[in-house]
Formats: sequence, structure tokens, C-alpha cells
Amino acid sequence: MSLDLSTSLSPARPLESADAMEERLREIGAARYHDRHPFHHMLHGGELTKGQVQAWALNRYYYQCTIPVKDAVVISRFRDRATRIEWRHRLEDHDGAEGAEGGIDRWLILTDGLGLDRAYVESTEGILPATRFAVEAYVHFVRDRSPLEAIASCLTELFAPNIHATRISGMLSHYDFINPTVMAYFQRRLTQAPRDADYALRYVRDHARTPEERAAVCNALIFKTQVLWTQLDALHHAYVLGHVPPGAFVPEEMR
Amino acid sequence: MSLDLSTSLSPARPLESADAMEERLREIGAARYHDRHPFHHMLHGGELTKGQVQAWALNRYYYQCTIPVKDAVVISRFRDRATRIEWRHRLEDHDGAEGAEGGIDRWLILTDGLGLDRAYVESTEGILPATRFAVEAYVHFVRDRSPLEAIASCLTELFAPNIHATRISGMLSHYDFINPTVMAYFQRRLTQAPRDADYALRYVRDHARTPEERAAVCNALIFKTQVLWTQLDALHHAYVLGHVPPGAFVPEEMR
Repeated sequence: MSLDLSTSLSPARPLESADAMEERLREIGAARYHDRHPFHHMLHGGELTKGQVQAWALNRYYYQCTIPVKDAVVISRFRDRATRIEWRHRLEDHDGAEGAEGGIDRWLILTDGLGLDRAYVESTEGILPATRFAVEAYVHFVRDRSPLEAIASCLTELFAPNIHATRISGMLSHYDFINPTVMAYFQRRLTQAPRDADYALRYVRDHARTPEERAAVCNALIFKTQVLWTQLDALHHAYVLGHVPPGAFVPEEMR
Repeated sequence: MSLDLSTSLSPARPLESADAMEERLREIGAARYHDRHPFHHMLHGGELTKGQVQAWALNRYYYQCTIPVKDAVVISRFRDRATRIEWRHRLEDHDGAEGAEGGIDRWLILTDGLGLDRAYVESTEGILPATRFAVEAYVHFVRDRSPLEAIASCLTELFAPNIHATRISGMLSHYDFINPTVMAYFQRRLTQAPRDADYALRYVRDHARTPEERAAVCNALIFKTQVLWTQLDALHHAYVLGHVPPGAFVPEEMR
């Protein structure tokens, strides 16, 4: 299948309806979502070493622990109480509560299971600078762009359930250091992500009322696919191709 | 020579004096400045194709055209008029003036000379997302950190003259598509960068008065070396190793 990679910041066809916009969003996902990235093919196909999987989990921890910060910024953009209430459960999904495990806890169960020191993971000291820059760009985006674009940037969740299902089965079958307990994060996201994606899709369909606003929604999704893709490019470069930048985590097998 | 790559965000020895801090800053430069990056070795040694040099110039244009934005933010951090006045010439160095060429003009002479369409370069549409994220992280840094850290983050200029001299002679001798006219940007920076670096070094020596402030200065320099290094990692991954992300510039020879 030949995919449209020319999807650009200024789409050629004006988006005259919510349906046209949704079609475009799904094209962007098909062409640019990080399920297409070679690093993920290696991760899910059992081609990575334990050290490379550690590097992935360590770096992605920074993304995970930033998500509630990002969501708090999204909430802060809305004077409309109903939208704030709707968005609020995302904070709880990720942060959990006193005595209730959240997404960040589940991610730490994964890094624990991979043998990474928890204090080191939480310090985020060993992550790739590219991870930090990409993830922080996401926070800045939801703060600096319109509230509509802030919501649109989470539309990658439309494409998440497939990749999570592939990841769970692929990683469980290929790696002896992976078991169902450490994959709890992804198991839980299988039900959380669709609910969140449905809301966001409905929101942008209802609130993007001009071709320009619909284009902005599509560009927000492109931006977000870049945030995700850039993180994998950096992991691939550092840990598959061996160009670890100064100061970043070095797996035992590369020392 | 074995270099200290462990230079971390929390230095082990407390920095008790301006001299100790300056020594540390020079160690950081020696270990982490992007003159050590393999992509630069290839660029200066004549090992890149014209398309790879185009990709470098195209991406680095985004850095160049963001510098005066960053400097305007730095100026905005100071209530102290003398510091604003001192910093102001940087805007002129980069932006030029009516009838007077600036650094951005000189960078466009380079991209023109490399055969890149000027409107395409100025649109920044084809740059790598990692370039955008790294460069914008620099703007956010000078806005969100202390004014002292904002100034400290430009201390990479301490190490720039060497790399510019190497670049001018290396590129002129190795590439038939490079001539002195297109290298005017670097020629001019040979005199501009040392003046700017001297001021910044004097400033941080005078204004970082505690070990904590001196550590913050060193960390600002580490941050900035990461901004530069990340850009080269991304270029290397995309254009030397052939993993161009969706939507980014593809040189003619790779099409």
C-alpha cells in the first residue's frame, strides 16, 4: 500500500466538513503514527536486546510522567467547566490516587521488571536529550496553541489500541524477561485510550467549524505524531545504531 | 585523551569559586561540544554529499532564524537597562537592518549557494521535527529559567571560533560547491562569537555567587550542548544512515 507521506502543514484540499477532516486524520495516522517506525517493529518482533528494551522503557518513562502535567495544562486552557470535568479523569488515570495505582505506577512496574533502578528512572537523568525536547514540546504546544489544537493533539489515541495489542502479544511471546504483570500498563490502556479518543474526536468534529480550524486540527495531529516518531528515531540512533550521546544511559551490554 | 562524560546535572564537587566554575565550563565544552560529533567530522572532512550538506544547512537555518527570537526573550528577562543594552547588538548581528546584511541573510547566501529554494528554506517546512524541538527548547529555556541561566546557555560561544575556523578551511578545500562567498556567515562569527562569549563568561563569573548558582550555570551549558548535539544526531540518523522521518526534506540523490 502506498501511503501519503506528503501530508503537509498546508493541506491542498480544503476540509469542508467534519467527515472530510476525520478522513484526513485517519490518513495522517496511517502514514505517520509510530506503529510504522522500525524501532517498534524490532521491539514487538523480539529483535531487541534487554538493554535496548531498558533504554526504551527508561526514555518512555519521561513521556509517561509528563502526560498528567500536559493534561493539567489542557485543563487550564478551558473556562468551560464541563470540559475541565471531562478531562479531569485523565489526571487520575495517570497519577492514580492514595492507595490506587495509576499509569505512572504501572510504568514503574515495567521498569522494575526490566531491572532498572527506580530512583534512577524517576530522576530522568539518563534519558536522551531528544526525548526531553520532544516531550516538552508537547507540553508547550498545549499551552501555546488554541484549546482546540490542544485537544486535537491527543488524537493519536485513535491509533493506540492496535499498537498496544500488538505490543502485548509480541513482547510476551518474544522476551523471557517480559511477563503479564509488567505489561499491565498497556493492558489498561486498551480500555482507557478508546474512551479518551472518542471524546477528543467528537470534540474536534463539533468545534472545528471552518476549513482553517479543521486544518489546524490535522496539523496538531501531525505535530503529535512527530513528538512520538522523534522519540523512536533517537532511541534507534542511540541504542540500535550505537550512537549514545554524552551523559545518556548506557546498557550493561554496551559498557 | 579520556574525557569526563559523566558531567552530570548534579556535579560531585561543589564549585567554590568563579575559577572552579570556569574550569568546569571548559571541561564540559571539551567533553560535550558538538565539534566532537561524527556528523561534523564528516562535514569538515569532505565526506558528505551535496544533498547531506543541503540537509545540514536547511535544518540549521531554523536554528539561525530562531536566535534573535531567543535573544529578544533574554533581553525581556532583564529589568536592568545596562544588560538589555549590552545584549541588544545580538539582535542586529543576526537580523541585520534596512540595507545592512545580518547573520540570517548570510545563512541564506549559504543555502542559495547550495541550490536550495529560498522560499522552501524560509518556510522551514522540510526540517526534521527533532531540529524544531531542540531549537524551541532553547527559547523555552531562556524564558523559563533564571536570567543567570539564560545568559549561561550561550556559553557554547566560548568554543565556537575553533569549530568555525575548521569548518571554513575544511569545507572550502573539500567541496567544489562551496566558495568563500557562501562561507561569509562563519567568517563573520569568528569575530562576533568571542566578543559575545567574553561578555557572557564575565557575567556568569560575576553573578553566580553560590555553589548552587555556579552549578546552575554549568547545567545551562550542558543543556545547550544537548541542544546542539541533538540536532546533529537527528541529521546523522536521517541523512547519513538513511532514516528520513515522514514529511522531512529528501535530497535529490535520495529520491
